[in-house]
Amino acid sequence: MTTQSGLTPSNLTDTSRIEAFSDGVFAIAITLLVLELHIPELEPGERLWPALLHEWPQFAAYLTSFAIIGIMWVNHHSMFRQIRRADRGLMFLNLGLLLWTALLPFPTSLFAEYLQDDSFDAHVAAAVYSTNLTLAAIAFSSIWWYVLRNHLVDHDLNRSQVRRSVLRYSVGTVLYAAAIGLSFISAPLTLLVQFLLAVYYGFEQLRTRS
Amino acid sequence: MTTQSGLTPSNLTDTSRIEAFSDGVFAIAITLLVLELHIPELEPGERLWPALLHEWPQFAAYLTSFAIIGIMWVNHHSMFRQIRRADRGLMFLNLGLLLWTALLPFPTSLFAEYLQDDSFDAHVAAAVYSTNLTLAAIAFSSIWWYVLRNHLVDHDLNRSQVRRSVLRYSVGTVLYAAAIGLSFISAPLTLLVQFLLAVYYGFEQLRTRS
Amino acid sequence: MTTQSGLTPSNLTDTSRIEAFSDGVFAIAITLLVLELHIPELEPGERLWPALLHEWPQFAAYLTSFAIIGIMWVNHHSMFRQIRRADRGLMFLNLGLLLWTALLPFPTSLFAEYLQDDSFDAHVAAAVYSTNLTLAAIAFSSIWWYVLRNHLVDHDLNRSQVRRSVLRYSVGTVLYAAAIGLSFISAPLTLLVQFLLAVYYGFEQLRTRS
Amino acid sequence: MTTQSGLTPSNLTDTSRIEAFSDGVFAIAITLLVLELHIPELEPGERLWPALLHEWPQFAAYLTSFAIIGIMWVNHHSMFRQIRRADRGLMFLNLGLLLWTALLPFPTSLFAEYLQDDSFDAHVAAAVYSTNLTLAAIAFSSIWWYVLRNHLVDHDLNRSQVRRSVLRYSVGTVLYAAAIGLSFISAPLTLLVQFLLAVYYGFEQLRTRS
Repeated sequence: MTTQSGLTPSNLTDTSRIEAFSDGVFAIAITLLVLELHIPELEPGERLWPALLHEWPQFAAYLTSFAIIGIMWVNHHSMFRQIRRADRGLMFLNLGLLLWTALLPFPTSLFAEYLQDDSFDAHVAAAVYSTNLTLAAIAFSSIWWYVLRNHLVDHDLNRSQVRRSVLRYSVGTVLYAAAIGLSFISAPLTLLVQFLLAVYYGFEQLRTRS
Repeated sequence: MTTQSGLTPSNLTDTSRIEAFSDGVFAIAITLLVLELHIPELEPGERLWPALLHEWPQFAAYLTSFAIIGIMWVNHHSMFRQIRRADRGLMFLNLGLLLWTALLPFPTSLFAEYLQDDSFDAHVAAAVYSTNLTLAAIAFSSIWWYVLRNHLVDHDLNRSQVRRSVLRYSVGTVLYAAAIGLSFISAPLTLLVQFLLAVYYGFEQLRTRS
Repeated sequence: MTTQSGLTPSNLTDTSRIEAFSDGVFAIAITLLVLELHIPELEPGERLWPALLHEWPQFAAYLTSFAIIGIMWVNHHSMFRQIRRADRGLMFLNLGLLLWTALLPFPTSLFAEYLQDDSFDAHVAAAVYSTNLTLAAIAFSSIWWYVLRNHLVDHDLNRSQVRRSVLRYSVGTVLYAAAIGLSFISAPLTLLVQFLLAVYYGFEQLRTRS
Repeated sequence: MTTQSGLTPSNLTDTSRIEAFSDGVFAIAITLLVLELHIPELEPGERLWPALLHEWPQFAAYLTSFAIIGIMWVNHHSMFRQIRRADRGLMFLNLGLLLWTALLPFPTSLFAEYLQDDSFDAHVAAAVYSTNLTLAAIAFSSIWWYVLRNHLVDHDLNRSQVRRSVLRYSVGTVLYAAAIGLSFISAPLTLLVQFLLAVYYGFEQLRTRS
């Protein structure tokens, strides 16, 4: 399995340094979200408390993206507990997932700024946010498909388990893609649905495991 | 104890990756605080040194939040040394604690900007800061309550130890809640009390252990 | 090999803490790139979608730098799997590599801002970006040269393997230096070539290992 | 040695999580320095290249602070290789060192902005920068003094080794304090001396070990 041509003793490694690097990116991205929160600039006569309340979209977007990155980390954790070997293909697919994770603070900030805009721009911002999450879901699916196909999992799963796991990732991707469509109906509703999807994925995983 | 239905061999894991992720968030949040410090913009004829001194609220808020996150990290460390197993419930409660930790640079910056404001806004900023810390204290308590209730600790504690530990977290939560009230009396005093609370928690833990 | 004079039991250590520190810097630099992305400020009557499209240089520069830092991390990972011992010289050469990695968000932002500038400034920005990457390539080469020369690798490589590995790093450095020249012909072409170089280095390494 | 009263089995732990947390703060602080670099805003008719050259103070300050934090990390690494046990006192002293490390991007930015100022403000900025580094040197000394006094080192050092190690830290602290004085003579010279001190400490350690 491991050919030793070239400099490297093996093209397969354990996953510990991938996990450490990924944990780093997840931890930094989730913490950088706070930099997108801005202190309100008060106009003369304006009070701080109503000005903060008026900024609820940025707090709602912050909370939603925090929940999403947090649950992505939990799920990344769960997935990699089942992966025992890594090759460069897995490293690159994982970099793809990290790309969409590290990028998330940008559409979060965009979404927050345009959430209450009464023009078509609110729909565009919601769609950009949902597209980012759809691409992250596709990246998750592609990692799982790759590790199954290249026998990098810890133990061979039976066909029913493989089918269920692939189905779960596919459904997730479809739900996120549907949220792109929803963006053109209502931006605030899209944010709420994204938050509920994150919570659901947290609990749904809990349920299938117990 | 570990049912093996579904993809995952077990719904219980060791806590090492939770601790690594938490350490990452604590380390990033404590280091990001510096980004809230701004170089004074001098008006014509103004000198740098008095302008820096005039900005003492942002340095005081920086120091206080640094001490708070630092001591939260120490206490998180102490708590997780006693936790040997993690499940998804613990992961989500821990994410709750990380939410309030990662958010802290925002109320820190808000508090620093309004500390010397002579309107009611100073009290609002102090109350937002204290509320953030109260929510962090509640998150700490809920983690401890959860690990006790689900027998995730290393060894069974006797009833007296459980009572003392729960009491300690409850008192902390009450003290932080009291600081919300204090915010409406004096904003600078609230900052001082928050700093002293952090120092006290550092030493208090030292004392009960020796 | 290890003299024990002075306080330190040995001037050679294992590489785990260097790798952890380097992983941290790579993870932070790759995630900080998002802070260089700015939400477009719309002029009256302007729409969000075309304004975002108009900002394609910053997304292209983001993607290119993300790919470059990601592949640098993969290659750093591969290189250090072959290094078993570290001394302070290796630590300082590694700090040199981290310097050019941590600095990359600055020329990325500069390149994005001037990519479509129709003056000579676009060439300057492209050359600054390419120079940064050339210096990173030189840093990579110097680490490899140092570990070969000081027998810090895991096992002695035969002369053909050493020649091939040194050749590979030299070719990379020459390619990056050539991109500095290309910067003065076309800035957008330089960005494209940098992206293709990153992809090529990803696949090229894959090929030589299989 | 380890009393087991209270909840905690022991008030002594291994140093691995302190080192991981410290590595995180060092890695983040060294990488955040790049956020203090600003793209020059060109005035009409101004060219990018001379504008970048004109900004040399911010690049010089960046390079100096990068070297300082990098060498602090190397020395922290060396020191903790000799420390085998940690208690809460060590954790708090280490937090003190991390405070001055995490704060460094602020005086770096301040120093860069005022380096070429021809008023007294340049001296103030240089003195603030040097004071920060002096406080970091004191924090380093206090950690070493504490671990010697509380027998937390790996093995008992002989008196000559203790004397030499304490002397080395004391000399470092005095040199940094002297740089505060130098700040009031020449700000650019202070920056140069700080860079040379960092390089010297790198090589000096190398020499005493070989």
